[in-house]
Amino acid sequence: MKIVIYLYNGITMLDAIGPYEVLRNIPDADICFVAEKIGEVQADSGFIDINVNHRIADVHKADILVIPGSTIAFLEEMKKETVLNWIRQIDKTTTWTTSVCSGSMLLASAGLLTDLKATSHWKPLNLLSKFGAVPTRERIVEEGKYITAAGVSAGIDMALYLSNRILGENETKAIQLILEYDPQPMFESGNYSTADEKTIKTAEKKLAKDAKKGLGLLGMLKYSKSIFDMIK
Amino acid sequence: MKIVIYLYNGITMLDAIGPYEVLRNIPDADICFVAEKIGEVQADSGFIDINVNHRIADVHKADILVIPGSTIAFLEEMKKETVLNWIRQIDKTTTWTTSVCSGSMLLASAGLLTDLKATSHWKPLNLLSKFGAVPTRERIVEEGKYITAAGVSAGIDMALYLSNRILGENETKAIQLILEYDPQPMFESGNYSTADEKTIKTAEKKLAKDAKKGLGLLGMLKYSKSIFDMIK
Repeated sequence: MKIVIYLYNGITMLDAIGPYEVLRNIPDADICFVAEKIGEVQADSGFIDINVNHRIADVHKADILVIPGSTIAFLEEMKKETVLNWIRQIDKTTTWTTSVCSGSMLLASAGLLTDLKATSHWKPLNLLSKFGAVPTRERIVEEGKYITAAGVSAGIDMALYLSNRILGENETKAIQLILEYDPQPMFESGNYSTADEKTIKTAEKKLAKDAKKGLGLLGMLKYSKSIFDMIK
Repeated sequence: MKIVIYLYNGITMLDAIGPYEVLRNIPDADICFVAEKIGEVQADSGFIDINVNHRIADVHKADILVIPGSTIAFLEEMKKETVLNWIRQIDKTTTWTTSVCSGSMLLASAGLLTDLKATSHWKPLNLLSKFGAVPTRERIVEEGKYITAAGVSAGIDMALYLSNRILGENETKAIQLILEYDPQPMFESGNYSTADEKTIKTAEKKLAKDAKKGLGLLGMLKYSKSIFDMIK
């Protein structure tokens, strides 16, 4: 069971590590973290980097492809023809093609979600429509072999959902217990549709600050105000 | 706000990345991943490694210390006097000393949890009593400045709990929304106390297989059967 997770500079780490931690419990899972180049891939926070040992040019197939999201770096990835071509090629070999958070923007940009429902982090969700997909505010959206998940932590739910499809209920319940995934958040503020206005405003302010930091970091002061407003 | 997260070979990645992804949203968070040596730290799965740029010998204080757990490598860490001494020293400077999963075994081994209630992953939980702590089957246990969390995914809840203590409800709800932490597991099998027997047996089998792999990997065929039975 070859599971390929695409990493890139500016990635949101939990988007990748959530699904990884679930899927590594699939018997015979062979998880391959891959990037454009071999070497360090830095997270959006700037506090951590992963050492990547495989480059996309050398990885030609996958049973499961996972595309994690990012605070802002996905805008850069969406413009890379090499990356989009690689995604299209791998997708031809997959049983499941999946994304977490803004990772769905890459799948949409590669033309894989045309006229399909898809989700992403709540903030850039509507941007999906610019690339042919139908933005859908749900935690997990399944369209044939394409499974997209909402923001950051939704990757854990998505991977368990996928595990259930692949291994069935018994094994998946055991994986859930191994991860002790018995979530007990103190507040019910994790869903955009039910969060109060104050929480949404505070979150948007924090995201805008992060995006500006990211823009500085990556030298991406080249986006139109309309796109920036959508994603910040 | 200096947040220090200790990494070591054999670590369970989500134990570290869950709290990191929450805590990095604290204003002025300065997150420092630290290990015994500078360089690569490999996860328990063998599929991923983090590049660590700080060594414990150079890190002398923290506002928050986070000790993540591992499938089996914590047994090795508990025997390292250099590591335990460093934990004791850092703890003297912290406002909060925390752990996720079997990370609490390191805090207990360092003598920091003596006669205090503490939790860990459900599997090795009782081992805490061998090191003076009082095993407590709860998702988050707070004893003064010591906060211990249950297995793997519990680190996300723990970090939000901590964020609430530090920043209060408004900011914490916003962080929860940024992470879109609106968990929707398909099954209710993540809690040991309520999981059915079949799920527990399947999980224990999978953990035993992982532990044996870990023992092979780390050359740790030196533990008594009684300890191995407790943690496998």
